[in-house]
Amino acid sequence: MEIKILKEIMEDVKASAKEIREHLKGKGVFMVNVMGSPGSGKTSLIRKLIEKLAPLKAGVIEGDIETTRDAEQLAGLNVPVMQINTAPFGGECHLEPSWILSALKELPLEEIDCLFVENVGNLVCPAEFDIGAHLQMVVLSVTEGEDKPLKYPLAFRVSHIVALSKIDLLPYLSYRLEQVESNIKKTNPELKLFALSAEKDKGVKELANFLKEKVETFKK
Amino acid sequence: MEIKILKEIMEDVKASAKEIREHLKGKGVFMVNVMGSPGSGKTSLIRKLIEKLAPLKAGVIEGDIETTRDAEQLAGLNVPVMQINTAPFGGECHLEPSWILSALKELPLEEIDCLFVENVGNLVCPAEFDIGAHLQMVVLSVTEGEDKPLKYPLAFRVSHIVALSKIDLLPYLSYRLEQVESNIKKTNPELKLFALSAEKDKGVKELANFLKEKVETFKK
Repeated sequence: MEIKILKEIMEDVKASAKEIREHLKGKGVFMVNVMGSPGSGKTSLIRKLIEKLAPLKAGVIEGDIETTRDAEQLAGLNVPVMQINTAPFGGECHLEPSWILSALKELPLEEIDCLFVENVGNLVCPAEFDIGAHLQMVVLSVTEGEDKPLKYPLAFRVSHIVALSKIDLLPYLSYRLEQVESNIKKTNPELKLFALSAEKDKGVKELANFLKEKVETFKK
Repeated sequence: MEIKILKEIMEDVKASAKEIREHLKGKGVFMVNVMGSPGSGKTSLIRKLIEKLAPLKAGVIEGDIETTRDAEQLAGLNVPVMQINTAPFGGECHLEPSWILSALKELPLEEIDCLFVENVGNLVCPAEFDIGAHLQMVVLSVTEGEDKPLKYPLAFRVSHIVALSKIDLLPYLSYRLEQVESNIKKTNPELKLFALSAEKDKGVKELANFLKEKVETFKK
């Protein structure tokens, strides 16, 4: 019985994700699912990307268990932000497409070219749920160590981009870039790597340009 | 139906956790559940703690989705280590007491005073599952930012100790210690804070001494 219910839930998820992807395609809104551990630097990176994507217009859906801190951090950018708190749903460790659907109803989609979804800070669960995004990005900070692509492979397998963040801290860590690169390749040879620091504004432009191209191709 | 099944599962979890706690009490084994984000420094800290706990004897249960890297990192310490991989269970984001029970059967409990369980790297899910430990510790690295106790409150609410790790990186971060202290107090005023760096061997001794006392009181 339990297996049957789980199967039904995952089928619902797939159907909703497909619905979202098609709906947004019709509206010309490119959706990016941003995943990563707590404190990997997702919010800071999204903030910088939004600045650099102009004149393309951005929007954000913020997923958090509790608090609206990340949404507040994005205030002042003058982009539409919707907050989803999972605490009322038992503090869920990921976002589900049904919640994205509800959030989309509240967002002015005609004013958005690129919609970032900041998933719950968690390198495990969000990767299991297709939320209907057109691009999946995993943020991995260098302070987390080189072995994470091997230990938490699913997030790397379902992603198109890995943003290797906080590279300004490299001089103070015993971190081997070639090691993480090799671990990423082993886990998913298709994954595109961007090494960057949002704090020091290093390497973010390259990722922004990549996204710009993606969004423009998508809208054609 | 779904709710009923979930309720039954959580009742099973509670019963198994209680069984484990009593079983270990009888054997004089003090169990510590170590939780935290991927890359927060759990393995390095456990390694250092084991060295400093001597002559008390330690053991480790390593929880990972895939790979045995953390267990390998502990080899050479000459303590019994059991690896639990959750990949065969659908890549579960946490450890469950039933798996701990199986691991306990394989460990030489009579040779262990303090048993560390390194949970899956995840600041959300492990906190939801009582695994029968006598002490709960959450490891939070300073690179994760000051706001995590507010954003992921459950792990901090169910813990007795927070190990604030990687403080050797503080000079390179815009991090306010008083801010994280205040956020910890707001979330759980009972939580005992140890600021430390396993890499630079700073502050670990204080935590080891605290644990030593706990283990000795427990064994009386």
